[in-house]
Amino acid sequence: MLEYLESLPLVDHHCHGVLGRDLDRTEFEESLTEAETSGPPGVSMFDTQVGFALRRWCPPVLDLDPHAEPGEYLARRAELGAAEVNRRFLAAAGLDALYVDTGYSPEAILDPPELGRLAGAPAHEIVRLEAIAEGVAADGVEAARFADEVRARLDDRIDAGGAAGAKSIAAYRAGLELAGERPPDAEAARAAGRLMRAAEESGTAPRVCDEVLHRFLVWCAVDAGLPVQFHVGYGDADADLRRGDPLLLTGLLRAMDPVPAMLLHNYPFHRHAGYLAQVLPNVYVDAGLATNGLGHRSPALIAELLELAPFGKVLYSSDAYGLAELYHLGALLFRRGLAGFLAGGVEDGAWTAADAERVAGLVASGNARRVYGR
Amino acid sequence: MLEYLESLPLVDHHCHGVLGRDLDRTEFEESLTEAETSGPPGVSMFDTQVGFALRRWCPPVLDLDPHAEPGEYLARRAELGAAEVNRRFLAAAGLDALYVDTGYSPEAILDPPELGRLAGAPAHEIVRLEAIAEGVAADGVEAARFADEVRARLDDRIDAGGAAGAKSIAAYRAGLELAGERPPDAEAARAAGRLMRAAEESGTAPRVCDEVLHRFLVWCAVDAGLPVQFHVGYGDADADLRRGDPLLLTGLLRAMDPVPAMLLHNYPFHRHAGYLAQVLPNVYVDAGLATNGLGHRSPALIAELLELAPFGKVLYSSDAYGLAELYHLGALLFRRGLAGFLAGGVEDGAWTAADAERVAGLVASGNARRVYGR
Amino acid sequence: MLEYLESLPLVDHHCHGVLGRDLDRTEFEESLTEAETSGPPGVSMFDTQVGFALRRWCPPVLDLDPHAEPGEYLARRAELGAAEVNRRFLAAAGLDALYVDTGYSPEAILDPPELGRLAGAPAHEIVRLEAIAEGVAADGVEAARFADEVRARLDDRIDAGGAAGAKSIAAYRAGLELAGERPPDAEAARAAGRLMRAAEESGTAPRVCDEVLHRFLVWCAVDAGLPVQFHVGYGDADADLRRGDPLLLTGLLRAMDPVPAMLLHNYPFHRHAGYLAQVLPNVYVDAGLATNGLGHRSPALIAELLELAPFGKVLYSSDAYGLAELYHLGALLFRRGLAGFLAGGVEDGAWTAADAERVAGLVASGNARRVYGR
Repeated sequence: MLEYLESLPLVDHHCHGVLGRDLDRTEFEESLTEAETSGPPGVSMFDTQVGFALRRWCPPVLDLDPHAEPGEYLARRAELGAAEVNRRFLAAAGLDALYVDTGYSPEAILDPPELGRLAGAPAHEIVRLEAIAEGVAADGVEAARFADEVRARLDDRIDAGGAAGAKSIAAYRAGLELAGERPPDAEAARAAGRLMRAAEESGTAPRVCDEVLHRFLVWCAVDAGLPVQFHVGYGDADADLRRGDPLLLTGLLRAMDPVPAMLLHNYPFHRHAGYLAQVLPNVYVDAGLATNGLGHRSPALIAELLELAPFGKVLYSSDAYGLAELYHLGALLFRRGLAGFLAGGVEDGAWTAADAERVAGLVASGNARRVYGR
Repeated sequence: MLEYLESLPLVDHHCHGVLGRDLDRTEFEESLTEAETSGPPGVSMFDTQVGFALRRWCPPVLDLDPHAEPGEYLARRAELGAAEVNRRFLAAAGLDALYVDTGYSPEAILDPPELGRLAGAPAHEIVRLEAIAEGVAADGVEAARFADEVRARLDDRIDAGGAAGAKSIAAYRAGLELAGERPPDAEAARAAGRLMRAAEESGTAPRVCDEVLHRFLVWCAVDAGLPVQFHVGYGDADADLRRGDPLLLTGLLRAMDPVPAMLLHNYPFHRHAGYLAQVLPNVYVDAGLATNGLGHRSPALIAELLELAPFGKVLYSSDAYGLAELYHLGALLFRRGLAGFLAGGVEDGAWTAADAERVAGLVASGNARRVYGR
Repeated sequence: MLEYLESLPLVDHHCHGVLGRDLDRTEFEESLTEAETSGPPGVSMFDTQVGFALRRWCPPVLDLDPHAEPGEYLARRAELGAAEVNRRFLAAAGLDALYVDTGYSPEAILDPPELGRLAGAPAHEIVRLEAIAEGVAADGVEAARFADEVRARLDDRIDAGGAAGAKSIAAYRAGLELAGERPPDAEAARAAGRLMRAAEESGTAPRVCDEVLHRFLVWCAVDAGLPVQFHVGYGDADADLRRGDPLLLTGLLRAMDPVPAMLLHNYPFHRHAGYLAQVLPNVYVDAGLATNGLGHRSPALIAELLELAPFGKVLYSSDAYGLAELYHLGALLFRRGLAGFLAGGVEDGAWTAADAERVAGLVASGNARRVYGR
């Protein structure tokens, strides 16, 4: 039973590119968690739940014993080279499809087709809304044409087959307290004007951090009928976690119905997210990023997420970024966590084995296929 | 030990009427969770913790095997008819007393005497404060007489034996951020004037959604010496869950001491509620509604609620509404969860069997009897 | 394995004095939890997680059987007398070092040297920042000299060897929403002026409750290079728990890097604290006070704290105050909880026994030694 559940192919509905180059120990530790650095003297990011989970599960993929020491592991990783390492971990993830957020690339990372080739599965693109707006602003489009131009570029991406969904990073910028109303184009134009003037004055690239613009962008995606992914909760240190509580988004989630809203990560607000998934018909949730982050504790997270969230509203994502290990580890931990949850219920007589298998199929891939329609 | 603990009669200190008519599948799914609808295409509300718990525990009461499929279950339910179904589930709940909130009736539901007859236990009434105020406003009482009239009607209900406690639904309306001060009658009069003008202008029934009025109503109940129940946390989608955190109510809870304040439901803020139950002498808590909602996971909720809450401050409620199943299921899950919690502690040597039995008696009925005084 | 882990000496990096006199039952119950009183009629503070944990683990130290009844326990306690009781429990705690917050003394309590003598371990002092400021204000120093005088007194304490760290109780007063910026001396002077005028007008001792002053004090400690402890979350009833969420402090924590910030207690916001410990290099966390408060449930708290917090960022504290039992009980529950957590991971193959022992050493004492530098 557990084996069957653990063998299910997964749709990873929110992930990113991985680095194509080799990494030294500091760079590797920096990529392992959401910290900005590898830690102060005396603190190793390997001494974390994700670090121990990586040492437990990833060395065998590189022909080492489980629990390899960090030094030994990184030496073997360097010996094989990034290309081979990426190939092995993407293949090991056992994915059916990927939905790749292409909006964040401080350095060169593998693009969706490359990821898909390594994973042996179709890789769809998720368009980052703020990146489109920032591109429009950077091109010096006049403010009055801003709204139309954003819509046109989004449509182009959809027509070119490059947008299976959209993603909002409002939680990293102005926060999730977005109103429900669709802003009129004139209001978006004024906000775009402010954005462009600020970029000009500071001499830096435009950076969307404005309640009106985040909201306008979400409505562009809604009008285009794209499922909208929202970064929620756990993420890197430049976010203010207080502003990442999904309850702040209740009004907008309600207003965008029936277009699907996908609440990503959610930890430590995953119970809030589960509540929203129950009471609002268009809300879906995952536990991406945190499944990796919590490692051996991820079953507790999965169980808490599944307290109120209907099983037809829960998806899988790794939120892997940078390290190919996170594709494999995320999939493995989620499979084991979900399988343990479902098999435990069968053992306790809470549900039947047939229901457990059916629910596993929904969460592993069925819900994602239904929502993204491909 | 477990059997003994599971056999205890319960006082259900917060529940509602059940529907006296038969339900089709869509209606049944709508009543099962706090969602407004039965879910978008492809999503069944049976595929939830409460749905699986219902399929596990309720079919045998209707002479079916555990885990009956939804279709089979609903067919048998229809065959027996609502009257028989209600009779069986209310009797199966094993209740010692009921405290019925009569304030919410979008359609005809069984009243307290009918519920008590089916349950074979006395059914007391809990008066919904906002309903009294809305009744006064609807009757066109002039604003200056509003405060006196509310107090008079509340007194009448108490004198008639129809008010074992009062209930505030501020969390569903203006939110729980209520000040501690008792509003002067003149301030209540002005708020009542606004309420009546708004109703008149919109041509709809008066609807209390005003910090001053919610607070005024709580003080009316406090002055009458009635325990005041507060809706907290988990509830249906028209509430803004952010405004349902019991910590928002700290000032008023402190001010109304020594009149008991009963924090209902509390999920996902149950740890906040447990803290308040420890540090404020007049605060009591339950895990109603969420015990049903979390199904197989409800033991985790009960254990978290009991982290800080003194065992003399915790009560049982089902918050059953509409479906008679929820009376039985709530009681069963709570009994099993509490019994497992207490028996686990005995097994680990954390407390003695005698203490476990004593605590079980407090939570099952003793605390409720002491607070409500009947 | 479990035995080895449970045998580790602990550094208790945040604790207080204990009472040197005998206590009656009401006083004892009042000291057991964070409630202001021993509970309303019918409610005993012994019927709590901490009460049952105390009855389980403390009677044997006083030559009684586990689970002694409260009356029997208190009689034996009185028979032995406070001096002997304090000696036994401090010795039983198995401490390597203590860091004693000396800022709160509504009545005579044992000072750090006495505590250290009883514990058989060095006892360092943690200076309460608000107490220094209140002392300066009470001495009638003119506002313009306030900032210099606070710094001078802090330096004197450091030079005299009486300040291994500083402590802020902003969470109990103005709340944790402190800005990141260092306030200029002139701004601190104006705030000090307000503080002194308010004390003069009310005829009471000065009481710091001002965002500017709390922040100024933290920066004084930062400039002196002292690790700063922050009261966070769970505490007694005169705090507003809403204002004790560590996420409110994010900006200041970031600004004070690389000086260590020690987030104390954290319950029920311990997952928020664990997140901050991961993403901000200078943030450390503990589960003091709540480990005692949750008793048999404390392993759940420890596991949740260790979800995101790097194991090199977690410390032990009892937050014992008043009752010497809390020194012993806190240490025992933490050792058992941490040992169970680590041994469980070994059993599941999540990490090796060698890693478990290494992590145990970090959390038990290594992290504290590294941060406090002694």
